[in-house]
Amino acid sequence: MSDPLRLGIAGLGTVGIGVVKIVQQHAALIAARAGRSIEITAVSARSRDKDRGADISGYAWEDDPVALARRADVDIVVELMGGSDGPAKAVTEAALSAGKDVVCANKALLAHHGQALAERAESNGRALRFEAAVAGGIPCVKALTEGLAGNAVARVMGVMNGTCNYILTRMEEAGLSYETVFAEADQLGFLEADPALDVGGIDAGHKLALLAAIAFGTRVDFEGVELEGIDRVSIDDIRHAGDMGYRIKLLGVAQMTGRGLEQRMAPCLVPKKSPLGQLPGATNMVVLEGDAVGQIVLRGAGAGEGPTASAVMADVIDIARGLRIPAFGRPAASLDTAVPARARAPLAYYLRMTLQDRPGALAKVAAALGEAGVSIDRMRQYDHKENFAPVLIVTHKTTRDAIEAAIDNFTATGVVVGEPVALAIQQV
Amino acid sequence: MSDPLRLGIAGLGTVGIGVVKIVQQHAALIAARAGRSIEITAVSARSRDKDRGADISGYAWEDDPVALARRADVDIVVELMGGSDGPAKAVTEAALSAGKDVVCANKALLAHHGQALAERAESNGRALRFEAAVAGGIPCVKALTEGLAGNAVARVMGVMNGTCNYILTRMEEAGLSYETVFAEADQLGFLEADPALDVGGIDAGHKLALLAAIAFGTRVDFEGVELEGIDRVSIDDIRHAGDMGYRIKLLGVAQMTGRGLEQRMAPCLVPKKSPLGQLPGATNMVVLEGDAVGQIVLRGAGAGEGPTASAVMADVIDIARGLRIPAFGRPAASLDTAVPARARAPLAYYLRMTLQDRPGALAKVAAALGEAGVSIDRMRQYDHKENFAPVLIVTHKTTRDAIEAAIDNFTATGVVVGEPVALAIQQV
Repeated sequence: MSDPLRLGIAGLGTVGIGVVKIVQQHAALIAARAGRSIEITAVSARSRDKDRGADISGYAWEDDPVALARRADVDIVVELMGGSDGPAKAVTEAALSAGKDVVCANKALLAHHGQALAERAESNGRALRFEAAVAGGIPCVKALTEGLAGNAVARVMGVMNGTCNYILTRMEEAGLSYETVFAEADQLGFLEADPALDVGGIDAGHKLALLAAIAFGTRVDFEGVELEGIDRVSIDDIRHAGDMGYRIKLLGVAQMTGRGLEQRMAPCLVPKKSPLGQLPGATNMVVLEGDAVGQIVLRGAGAGEGPTASAVMADVIDIARGLRIPAFGRPAASLDTAVPARARAPLAYYLRMTLQDRPGALAKVAAALGEAGVSIDRMRQYDHKENFAPVLIVTHKTTRDAIEAAIDNFTATGVVVGEPVALAIQQV
Repeated sequence: MSDPLRLGIAGLGTVGIGVVKIVQQHAALIAARAGRSIEITAVSARSRDKDRGADISGYAWEDDPVALARRADVDIVVELMGGSDGPAKAVTEAALSAGKDVVCANKALLAHHGQALAERAESNGRALRFEAAVAGGIPCVKALTEGLAGNAVARVMGVMNGTCNYILTRMEEAGLSYETVFAEADQLGFLEADPALDVGGIDAGHKLALLAAIAFGTRVDFEGVELEGIDRVSIDDIRHAGDMGYRIKLLGVAQMTGRGLEQRMAPCLVPKKSPLGQLPGATNMVVLEGDAVGQIVLRGAGAGEGPTASAVMADVIDIARGLRIPAFGRPAASLDTAVPARARAPLAYYLRMTLQDRPGALAKVAAALGEAGVSIDRMRQYDHKENFAPVLIVTHKTTRDAIEAAIDNFTATGVVVGEPVALAIQQV
């Protein structure tokens, strides 16, 4: 058996402590599987004295994570600090330059600096792995990079933000408003310091951009992701969707088309009976579609100590076993620059708006839809409140461009109160 | 870039031709991902002249697959002939002994000879990989061996025989008898030459035994798999189960308990709304449960040219990328000998029997269940035919031992006509 593989862990939050626990509890099992023992030699975090529920007294302590990254007795730096810049970036760069492999769970860092970091890793002959950055415990980076390596990938999709899924599920189950459940989630500590990361779709968008880079051999292009958050989804939308057999999920879709790379993260209606529609609470799902394999669906916990640490350890054990795959599945220098394209796969849309309750209002909306070439599948006017009439329309398949043109048109007529909501219906 | 990696393909049936097509169509894509080009140098099959829908004229032909396995211009032997002994075994042994890596889709071979072949591979420093042997295109061997490598695995489950799933789905949808649908499946060419491999659960049992070996670090123990086929599942069972919100699936469950390794492949009732219950037609599903990651569910095509060839190519590309993991995830010599244990997780059971329509018959059954310690959740007597009364019982959670004792007891009273059917209800 080879020498032990030595980890330096930067960041001892939930995931870091999860990794410590696995290394301690499963030392023999992991050594048998990895072909060598894996041990932790040094750790770094903000506060040394905090009680973390795991014994870290046997490990060297570094106040400065960059110093940890450069230690001679560390082979793999496990970066679990988070954040797209600042210390996380400095640690990763220092580690790769010092000839260490890096395993991280940091989607923000990779979404913004993945290309430069992958190039640095490869020029130093080291691995940069990030299974834990996408969909927590689900081995989806591995499934895509390795399991589907013989496929031209057509499309990747995913529900990859547990907090959004929790909020939408809770709204539906308890019949509560977005605002109420958002406040609950905040109290429960489910939200990031900047909640837009979750409910604005940014975190999930980071993950989609990483999967797209692997799938299509393009440089990570987070800027190219069309983002729409869940903050405009109302309890009425959830009820109306439910009446028609749908649920609302924050769904990411990335596909390569003749016009370029489409990446979109937005709330969508999915059939209640579909795998995506059945996804409970904080569970994540990733859908991979390849030309040979067809559709592969992966489901599991998208966050949490155990699941995320499990993904970190998969990367660590891969490295211990000698696996050295480029971060995005092919040499970083060979990745194409993505040409972002606006998502315009033909889809049916759900439209909700509030009309002024006056003669001809609905006719103006119908006319505007018709002018934009959007045909109506179903239309319902709900119970009036004062002088406002909530109206619900499901269209036949059309493009987002046509839907937005129609919305502009009927909004211009002045019959609509507030801003209409338009959600695609994805038949996944 | 390194030298090309050269494949010799033994067996040019559906899967073999699928592999040829992928290698030909995606040469550039695969070279970019694998870091070296992958080419086919030689092929072998029964008949040279058959039209196979792919151009194999550029490859050397070997009538004898063992000769192919020994060719100096072959690095990886791809064994796609099938069969647990005979030529497939000879080719695999010859290839490993000649210092070639082997990729195969042959669950029967590995279920029977996996230990010896893994030892041979490792003593020669070669890889023996079999992603395609389990659940077709689903990268479940990889997910378990690598993705969950940091977990103590608690349980693995799977619906892994597409033919059985097709038969059960078709019976339900068309309301046809087992015999009718079996004949249809035979006509469509869905069945193996020996249909017991499919409907007897043997093929799925092979797959379960392979996953269990990886999950629990034990030598493959196919003999230890309790097998029950789908041939005793009637259209009435499917209807009764449906009335109660269940579907019937041929489900494999393997778990390590204090008493030993439980492996059972049998038709079970699963909730219609569960991921397993929603599985359509020939789709497979594998469920992996680890102590850190929780439950991971993988779904995809379990058979067919594209999906199976995709899995073969994943193994080939892994080897091209330098991955050399022992076949069962740890050195073969270190695998424990499995201690087979009878599956006895407490489960609710579905019992169907036909009683003679005479006073006290039902009371005798109820008494026999009570004596065996089995308590009844629901009982229904269906429409009589002549003097026979079909009776349906759902029990509270109990053990298989208790159920079988009860069946023995009430069968001995002489009130039962024919053989009762007992199916476990799995809340997956």
